[in-house]
Amino acid sequence: MSNQTTVVAPISWTGGSDGFLTLLDQTKLPTEIAYLNCDQVDHVFDAIQRLSVRGAPAIGIAAAYGVVLALRDQGDDDNPLVSIEVAKQAASSACDHLAESRPTAVNLFWALDQMRKVIGATDDQTPPVQLRKRLLTEAKKIHEADQAQCAAIGRYGAELLGQLGAGAGIITHCNTGALATGGDGTALSVLFALHEAGLAPKVFADETRPLLQGARLTAWELQQRGLESTLICDSMAALVLNEGKAQAVIVGADRIASNGDTANKIGTYGLAVAARYHQAPFYVAAPTTTFDMTIATGEEIPIEQRKADEVTKGFGSSTAPEEIEVYNPAFDVTPAELITAIITERGVIKPVNSENLAKLVAE
Amino acid sequence: MSNQTTVVAPISWTGGSDGFLTLLDQTKLPTEIAYLNCDQVDHVFDAIQRLSVRGAPAIGIAAAYGVVLALRDQGDDDNPLVSIEVAKQAASSACDHLAESRPTAVNLFWALDQMRKVIGATDDQTPPVQLRKRLLTEAKKIHEADQAQCAAIGRYGAELLGQLGAGAGIITHCNTGALATGGDGTALSVLFALHEAGLAPKVFADETRPLLQGARLTAWELQQRGLESTLICDSMAALVLNEGKAQAVIVGADRIASNGDTANKIGTYGLAVAARYHQAPFYVAAPTTTFDMTIATGEEIPIEQRKADEVTKGFGSSTAPEEIEVYNPAFDVTPAELITAIITERGVIKPVNSENLAKLVAE
Repeated sequence: MSNQTTVVAPISWTGGSDGFLTLLDQTKLPTEIAYLNCDQVDHVFDAIQRLSVRGAPAIGIAAAYGVVLALRDQGDDDNPLVSIEVAKQAASSACDHLAESRPTAVNLFWALDQMRKVIGATDDQTPPVQLRKRLLTEAKKIHEADQAQCAAIGRYGAELLGQLGAGAGIITHCNTGALATGGDGTALSVLFALHEAGLAPKVFADETRPLLQGARLTAWELQQRGLESTLICDSMAALVLNEGKAQAVIVGADRIASNGDTANKIGTYGLAVAARYHQAPFYVAAPTTTFDMTIATGEEIPIEQRKADEVTKGFGSSTAPEEIEVYNPAFDVTPAELITAIITERGVIKPVNSENLAKLVAE
Repeated sequence: MSNQTTVVAPISWTGGSDGFLTLLDQTKLPTEIAYLNCDQVDHVFDAIQRLSVRGAPAIGIAAAYGVVLALRDQGDDDNPLVSIEVAKQAASSACDHLAESRPTAVNLFWALDQMRKVIGATDDQTPPVQLRKRLLTEAKKIHEADQAQCAAIGRYGAELLGQLGAGAGIITHCNTGALATGGDGTALSVLFALHEAGLAPKVFADETRPLLQGARLTAWELQQRGLESTLICDSMAALVLNEGKAQAVIVGADRIASNGDTANKIGTYGLAVAARYHQAPFYVAAPTTTFDMTIATGEEIPIEQRKADEVTKGFGSSTAPEEIEVYNPAFDVTPAELITAIITERGVIKPVNSENLAKLVAE
């Protein structure tokens, strides 16, 4: 993470394969910097479900480390406490369990599939502790690969968005930075790269209701990295485009169907509609681990529905009448035709369609 | 207010012309029902500025009563404490002062103009207490006229939106009900009328960041009146239209230029863009006191900029990093071409253009 100046590490592993996972508790930011030490699978499961760790790539990385924790109390090389069969079973169960934590981001399932491959490739002569070590190695590999992917997305994105010229106004939504990934982020990585290239982007951060990841996390990351940034309510984005304060939009993704339809944080779709109306380019930045080539369109992406409380009691006080009906989808799907380009670690997909996605994935 | 079942009176006057104004403190809703008794002009000024009373028609009514308070301590018929010249001067100064409370809603200036006409029509032989009585009579007339206007808007609007059929999904933004007016509201009056006509609209209430008038006030009014209603974040409206959950949008207005361009609560413009993209009709409901025929287009409407704190510290906790730059316009302007029709107390303007506005105003 060459450009990483964030003073906190959102995801880190301490010790050997019997070590533990430390997560920055993102629900406390920006007023408090608190960490969660996880030494059980359930700690990781809860941290994902409570959004202490969030962002599609970060969820995948945390879950991968979580699988290692399933074998933590199973002894050491000299004194294995369980058989390899029991260890493999425990690791597989951890994968199944962690896959239930959240439904939409596909990086979670991709990372757990990588862990399952390690389990599957382990024969019954392997000492249980060897399996644990291999799983930690795989989790670290996923973590490091994501760092490299973030850097590559930043490079490709800065090349593309650099065409907007210096001082361009760019709207982003939710949080897609170092807090959401193993590296510098996806959409934010592009903005950081533009900044480091001296192109001085003026970033408008949507606060991103209901959980305010934009206000709490993105504004904080942008401030830490010294970018010129302005916080807006989600409902102001169309005005900011109409006033010419911003000329483009860039967001991350939680799952991208094989035709390019993109599930991302609720509000992304409305932002894409506003961008189209104002003829502003709308960019998605995501690693290819976010692609789900098994589904034809975004209609097949399951959308997580979350509790009413997030909307009615989000700010520490009750802001709506009791028992009011609330609709609270965590994500929406932006159709490929509203997306100008998808920026990946392997290059840029433009125009966004099934053929171009398939070509990039096959490379 | 024939259909008024709200148990609280948002604006009421107690006693004669030396009485006082009582305002429901809308900043405390829905968790607390608290009233402010105002017996000085400054109390009303502060209540308008703090948004204890808000909504374009309600601001006008409160300000009109506020002018009466300027003469409250000036004795009675038998014992006038000031000359008529001093009384007229005090009332005029109150008009000037109250006009400074908020810049965008034009009903405020319209109501104060009505009060100024009463002052201007008072000759120097008039006993000062007579002026006070005439001002109270005028304020009550403005209040009662607004009630009648709300009812008429409800009737015209229900006729128009009734064409959507029973059970139509309709999105609304901010608060435009009994809390925002002297009667049943503007956009909400239409929804109440549809409900009372047995057409069972399914209302989606935008929470309306930053001050959550939709969550705190509209959801509460809809619940009190028994309408089927769902609270959403502003960023969900485009999805609700795309999913076919809603087929139309109706909002109020703070100022309408002579070509139909409409200033309304921030977020209205983005909602209008989303409605257009989904080919859903977008309606504005407002009394003709909201029209500003002195300006050609919405570009001439001054837009109030409010404090960053409303976005970063809105509801009891800090939700953004310190010293982050914030853009917080209280209103935006929706161009006439995005508005399907304007529903007034005198009838419906459709299509929305200078010619049709002028025709309705001249009638």
